[in-house]
Amino acid sequence: MSTKKLWGGRFQAQAETWVDEFGASISFDQLMADEDIEGSLAHVKMLKKTKILNESDSNQIIAGLENVRKELHEGKLEFTVENEDIHMNIESILTDEIGPVAGKLHTGRSRNDQVATDFHLYVKNRLPKIVEEIQTIQKTLVELAENNVETIMPGYTHLQHAQPISYGHYLMAYYSMFKRDVERFQFNMKHADISPLGAAALAGTTFPIDREFTAKELGFADVYSNSLDAVSDRDFALEFLSNASILMMHLSRFCEEISMWVSYEFNYLELSDKYTTGSSIMPQKKNPDMAELIRGKSGRVYGHLLGLLSTMKSLPLAYNKDLQEDKEGTFDTVKTLLPALRVFNGMISTLNVKKDNMRHATENDFSNATELADYLATKGIPFREAHGIVGQLVLKGLENHQNLQDITMDEFKKISPLIEDDVYEVLKPEIAVERRNSLGGTGFASVRKQIKDAKAELNAVVSE
Amino acid sequence: MSTKKLWGGRFQAQAETWVDEFGASISFDQLMADEDIEGSLAHVKMLKKTKILNESDSNQIIAGLENVRKELHEGKLEFTVENEDIHMNIESILTDEIGPVAGKLHTGRSRNDQVATDFHLYVKNRLPKIVEEIQTIQKTLVELAENNVETIMPGYTHLQHAQPISYGHYLMAYYSMFKRDVERFQFNMKHADISPLGAAALAGTTFPIDREFTAKELGFADVYSNSLDAVSDRDFALEFLSNASILMMHLSRFCEEISMWVSYEFNYLELSDKYTTGSSIMPQKKNPDMAELIRGKSGRVYGHLLGLLSTMKSLPLAYNKDLQEDKEGTFDTVKTLLPALRVFNGMISTLNVKKDNMRHATENDFSNATELADYLATKGIPFREAHGIVGQLVLKGLENHQNLQDITMDEFKKISPLIEDDVYEVLKPEIAVERRNSLGGTGFASVRKQIKDAKAELNAVVSE
Amino acid sequence: MSTKKLWGGRFQAQAETWVDEFGASISFDQLMADEDIEGSLAHVKMLKKTKILNESDSNQIIAGLENVRKELHEGKLEFTVENEDIHMNIESILTDEIGPVAGKLHTGRSRNDQVATDFHLYVKNRLPKIVEEIQTIQKTLVELAENNVETIMPGYTHLQHAQPISYGHYLMAYYSMFKRDVERFQFNMKHADISPLGAAALAGTTFPIDREFTAKELGFADVYSNSLDAVSDRDFALEFLSNASILMMHLSRFCEEISMWVSYEFNYLELSDKYTTGSSIMPQKKNPDMAELIRGKSGRVYGHLLGLLSTMKSLPLAYNKDLQEDKEGTFDTVKTLLPALRVFNGMISTLNVKKDNMRHATENDFSNATELADYLATKGIPFREAHGIVGQLVLKGLENHQNLQDITMDEFKKISPLIEDDVYEVLKPEIAVERRNSLGGTGFASVRKQIKDAKAELNAVVSE
Amino acid sequence: MSTKKLWGGRFQAQAETWVDEFGASISFDQLMADEDIEGSLAHVKMLKKTKILNESDSNQIIAGLENVRKELHEGKLEFTVENEDIHMNIESILTDEIGPVAGKLHTGRSRNDQVATDFHLYVKNRLPKIVEEIQTIQKTLVELAENNVETIMPGYTHLQHAQPISYGHYLMAYYSMFKRDVERFQFNMKHADISPLGAAALAGTTFPIDREFTAKELGFADVYSNSLDAVSDRDFALEFLSNASILMMHLSRFCEEISMWVSYEFNYLELSDKYTTGSSIMPQKKNPDMAELIRGKSGRVYGHLLGLLSTMKSLPLAYNKDLQEDKEGTFDTVKTLLPALRVFNGMISTLNVKKDNMRHATENDFSNATELADYLATKGIPFREAHGIVGQLVLKGLENHQNLQDITMDEFKKISPLIEDDVYEVLKPEIAVERRNSLGGTGFASVRKQIKDAKAELNAVVSE
Repeated sequence: MSTKKLWGGRFQAQAETWVDEFGASISFDQLMADEDIEGSLAHVKMLKKTKILNESDSNQIIAGLENVRKELHEGKLEFTVENEDIHMNIESILTDEIGPVAGKLHTGRSRNDQVATDFHLYVKNRLPKIVEEIQTIQKTLVELAENNVETIMPGYTHLQHAQPISYGHYLMAYYSMFKRDVERFQFNMKHADISPLGAAALAGTTFPIDREFTAKELGFADVYSNSLDAVSDRDFALEFLSNASILMMHLSRFCEEISMWVSYEFNYLELSDKYTTGSSIMPQKKNPDMAELIRGKSGRVYGHLLGLLSTMKSLPLAYNKDLQEDKEGTFDTVKTLLPALRVFNGMISTLNVKKDNMRHATENDFSNATELADYLATKGIPFREAHGIVGQLVLKGLENHQNLQDITMDEFKKISPLIEDDVYEVLKPEIAVERRNSLGGTGFASVRKQIKDAKAELNAVVSE
Repeated sequence: MSTKKLWGGRFQAQAETWVDEFGASISFDQLMADEDIEGSLAHVKMLKKTKILNESDSNQIIAGLENVRKELHEGKLEFTVENEDIHMNIESILTDEIGPVAGKLHTGRSRNDQVATDFHLYVKNRLPKIVEEIQTIQKTLVELAENNVETIMPGYTHLQHAQPISYGHYLMAYYSMFKRDVERFQFNMKHADISPLGAAALAGTTFPIDREFTAKELGFADVYSNSLDAVSDRDFALEFLSNASILMMHLSRFCEEISMWVSYEFNYLELSDKYTTGSSIMPQKKNPDMAELIRGKSGRVYGHLLGLLSTMKSLPLAYNKDLQEDKEGTFDTVKTLLPALRVFNGMISTLNVKKDNMRHATENDFSNATELADYLATKGIPFREAHGIVGQLVLKGLENHQNLQDITMDEFKKISPLIEDDVYEVLKPEIAVERRNSLGGTGFASVRKQIKDAKAELNAVVSE
Repeated sequence: MSTKKLWGGRFQAQAETWVDEFGASISFDQLMADEDIEGSLAHVKMLKKTKILNESDSNQIIAGLENVRKELHEGKLEFTVENEDIHMNIESILTDEIGPVAGKLHTGRSRNDQVATDFHLYVKNRLPKIVEEIQTIQKTLVELAENNVETIMPGYTHLQHAQPISYGHYLMAYYSMFKRDVERFQFNMKHADISPLGAAALAGTTFPIDREFTAKELGFADVYSNSLDAVSDRDFALEFLSNASILMMHLSRFCEEISMWVSYEFNYLELSDKYTTGSSIMPQKKNPDMAELIRGKSGRVYGHLLGLLSTMKSLPLAYNKDLQEDKEGTFDTVKTLLPALRVFNGMISTLNVKKDNMRHATENDFSNATELADYLATKGIPFREAHGIVGQLVLKGLENHQNLQDITMDEFKKISPLIEDDVYEVLKPEIAVERRNSLGGTGFASVRKQIKDAKAELNAVVSE
Repeated sequence: MSTKKLWGGRFQAQAETWVDEFGASISFDQLMADEDIEGSLAHVKMLKKTKILNESDSNQIIAGLENVRKELHEGKLEFTVENEDIHMNIESILTDEIGPVAGKLHTGRSRNDQVATDFHLYVKNRLPKIVEEIQTIQKTLVELAENNVETIMPGYTHLQHAQPISYGHYLMAYYSMFKRDVERFQFNMKHADISPLGAAALAGTTFPIDREFTAKELGFADVYSNSLDAVSDRDFALEFLSNASILMMHLSRFCEEISMWVSYEFNYLELSDKYTTGSSIMPQKKNPDMAELIRGKSGRVYGHLLGLLSTMKSLPLAYNKDLQEDKEGTFDTVKTLLPALRVFNGMISTLNVKKDNMRHATENDFSNATELADYLATKGIPFREAHGIVGQLVLKGLENHQNLQDITMDEFKKISPLIEDDVYEVLKPEIAVERRNSLGGTGFASVRKQIKDAKAELNAVVSE
């Protein structure tokens, strides 16, 4: 009994449909239909140029592929599970349209290098989009920071008030994190931007193909120097998933803070109605759903990273069917990142910053204790000793509901005759912030410098 | 400006469509449409029984829901992103059909307990199906084992020939693994089979609802005793993902062995054409794609487990939007497990076992070395010493290309005068296997006992 | 050249020390020294009973092993990397002490079943300790809940005030979570409590051993019915790591809430000085370090779970050296769980609950909006409509800084003539809580019932 | 009651020892003792230079620290849990030795920037060592490849013979993988090589510190531009764990192949006795333990990556105690990678390559089927048709136990009159390999070019 599978020559029995369905990738790899046609076009142009195929055959195939692409864009193509994957589906459609000459397209290549090419193109094309979305967020952060250089708020460690900081400074911390994200995705390009096309099944081919020609056609910066590596390498996808995981982790931290800061208790921020939802039962609710969802989606992306790492563990060279599992997690990660970044940007560019509430929170919280300790240290008391003295004052203050700035000069003098009237100035939150002008500190001048540098960086991007 | 969102009373601005899309779950939670309608029917019947709603209103809603269910099964329902999730979509369709009285359905419940109910029903309904598929595999294994009790093959440790074993014994090892899988999924039911319905948003309700009534209607064995726990618990899903991961790990081990055993080098098994595929370039290929794919999909399931664990980490009580991320990984795991189990069963029930090749592999491999050491130990030589003697013989044999059974009696006598003619019997692979009749050993009688016990277990299942 | 390795008969060259160090497990598996000696004692007693060894040899070995155990407990044993693992180390020490007869101990077993036995014993012995620590926490929670049945606090969803609840109710939600944890660890015992001893290398043995005897000696409830499975199964460890991960997830949720609730902004709880630390630079800091650390350690345990799942993926039967990686993650998980549970219990049993602050937070937060909607629904307005009306009131209230309870009767009447004076009662937080007496609700009576049931459960444990 | 903790001023009660133990990091962060002293020396030199401390105090502290370092290297320091971490331990020892002036060392810094500095230094110092070990492996691979350019073996896809390849080509595939690993670890340096010192607790300091001075002293290439980011960033550790995971994945693939290729069935390679071990029960065993262990350890490293990603998810800025969990996984990864790389290198540099066995395996396996299809395609038959023809020949050959090269010219002519005598040349394995000289193909010339390029790259490294 013969079978219609394009590879079916040596087979006597056919799989049941439900088995085919399990094995088929067409349900998801059709996302790469464009990349697949691009790859085939480059391949056949090369076959023509190298005269592996003659002009007439080549031209027929080229015209046929261009027509298939047109139909794809018009939404006219229908894919089937019987044809397993996007490669076989496209070839089968092409055959229907131009006849057996379509069978010459696959000369000197294999699905192994074909799928690797498609997947490289897919990742390579998405990286700049992701970078662009991150940079949009960076711009929003810089603008927001510029408007909040002198917005005073409690700085936290262990979620406890630590020292007063500038809200602009806080925002610029995330600017720096996203800058590293951009750098990682840009580095990722190095290993995505390599052409596997022409590696064929695993060993290269005896046809006199020109891999550098196809690489150039497809805009690849480099070609794989080893064919076995070309068809079995998925490092670029793992790098992508790892970078995406770190990016999601950064977003999850900001979103966690949004979730807390819009709460009744903190009340530092209000989200636009456009980025919140209500409750089906509690009429008063205004939930920071988008922030929570982005935070929650970090788990999903982590899962995709671990999934692919596990799948690739212990796989012998070269291609194994396990590698088909590389795509869904990667596609879903792209599908998660792009809207998450856009929603995040929308959310923070429409934030209502409640500056008074932030400022107010720094006034009764002992977050100026370091100021006093540093003040004493400046007067010559070893820092450890100064720290101990102020610790005792805090303890007493907590008992008496008395802030440090409420201690009288008489009381101060009892602690140390070195304390003078200028101590009250030192204890003001805005002074505490303003004076922290060590490099990278929260001092206003320091934050303005960070903003200025960031703008220069972002402008450099634009003019690239 | 008013908004059409069912919860929109307090909102002044509406989200953009692309933000809605990011937040909406309808694209995937429509998989639970049946469960959602079931849950609503149980709820409204309870509202009727407790007279929270009057007969007329209740009956209208019941009839309406039944009609919606009919339309669902006929494929007539259309869901929209504007209505966010399956709950709001169903309610909105119901409202279109029966008017404002539909608004009374949500009395005394919230989406929080509603989605938890749907999700519990979803998992609860799939567990028996998964158990059934595993038991089908167990039956296939027992049959296959029965036909291979006396099929001799090399037993491996470190992928090195260790001692000859019965292929039936090997198959029964997997029988035992799958038995534990079944037990785990059955235990999973304990925590899936609890009704959260009536927990409302988080705190229960002041309406005099009857949670035991709805639980009974829906076939739940128990009700959550704490409403906060009811809406924020996802343990049953984590247990499911963990059990699924361990199951996939078992499958990956068997599939790894299939992959090796159908290779040119091992050549112990041949797969049916129905469970293999060919190559687009290499005409001779017959690839164990299904085995590889199942093996590869273990990574995917691991990823879903880790994803949900990460998502749930540090979530404060009660419901948070992050929890919406619980479903896709779980759904995909079900969608992975069921066909993987079926394909696996198909694959092993059509295996061609090449008994001669297996047997042949035990003849020139020194895997009878333990027999000789045990023989010497039985003669009174401390096992450690016996082990050392045989090690030296193996080393010499490797150099001279001489198997242990080829050593002459003269040579044996030089090693130890205790060795006698019966040693040659001991060195035969089938004797080595046959004699290992310690409990659970690979001896024929032992394997037959395992098979007999397994059949009794499987029969007990059937007659339950 | 000969080598001193106990298995070295067939080897001509020896590994360098640094290679031995990489391969050796003695640095961590010495944690199972006690279990190893127990296992050996059971094995030799069986060899004696079955007359595989004669009385004299057996007695010498038994006495020797008992002496080694004594030396172990006295801290006198020294282990070496040359002897690789705990099994070889113990056997080597035994040989030093009683001479070559020690070589007879290994008759009819292998390191493969030996290490599996040790590891089973290790897990089996720790499970009850972990269960006990969880139950201690459950008791603390019940006590704390009993003291806080009528402590009113905001119930949260999306970290937004949702509806007022009883703090006792909140605590009982965690009681339920921990109850499931206990059930999981108890189920875990089913698969830990099986003896692999006697499976030998992989295939059982030709010696007439008695596996049921050794199982009974070691207190195992069952024996593995298949020797291949016995030496390659690590399900019980994976179950343990999975259960530990879910437990840590529960702890992380409570600890996240502690971290927020001790903050300046929430100020609901104060931790004992005994469970907090200070800052090296900020004298006022009192950080909830222990809560943060427990929260953070959830990641570590997740990692161990995923690590072992990945390691076991695609491993062919039976034993492979990869399996040596099963232990460190499991040991570290035990080492993490036990103190984490103890510290957690200490932390919550010394909590200072600031009831006034909790109560105060429910007074100006619209968390009584559901009450009003339910009130309207009771009056016959469809819930959806009632929800919309209250939503509008909240919006207006936010603009005018007016709470729902501050709306005059005149204003109420304009909204609906159905509203009467009793509405003000309904809007009080304690009434809202008290009335939620649906099963599992936050109503005082409901919470008291939960506590009563919990006490009965815990007493049943004690009297078991 | 006063307490001796260095931060204890405001505290009234002390933690129990077992609580301290749970919170303390000294058991593992003492690994960074050297880095901690380096950091402190740089800090005090800066305090001196900026005159924040006077000459005399500074010199005392410098001399004191240098003495402590000397004692550390002499193994004389003893650390205690009471002093929590390496920072407090060193400061406490310094105080014991030079008195209260030691308390001035902590001026203008905090443990938060101190630990970040130590951890950066730790990672920064290990990266080059790891790169060096990988490059050693690359050199070994190139040498081995050079000796095996013309060693013919079956190339595999799906673990089925696909096409014959050069073993040298196979080795060069791994060369390429390791090259990407090197590039990743080098990129990692970009984010490790930034100084957080001077960020203080989170906000910078009011002292006129000079962060660029300390950065230069410590050999950092850059300084963090934002203090909040400086103390809460762990991207460099996540990048490290991600890079390590991908590296371990590469190693696991090679080790999987070793494990198969040293098996009785493949018999392509033999490992040196130095990198194998025996069995305690089976005297003939020679197990590739080291390969298995490296393969198994990939799971461990994956776990550390996922552990830290999970731990960092949703952490608000800036420092939280959860971050203490960053170190053990990273340290253990270094402790895993370095010996794994060395053992791997030792293992492959002592490989015995059984060239005859490899060559022999290509002779009866239809792996020359692609040659025939390509031959037909060259004659003008569309590739798809040619593929089908050859598929049928393979099927027939399998039935008749006839290889393609055994088909007579008469039979060939029946298939296609285009086939001529030169077909027999084409079907020879070495010809199939030799002719695959497309860029990156397995052809001898292509492999020689890869080797030449690799040598140039490695030389460039040396001369850097």
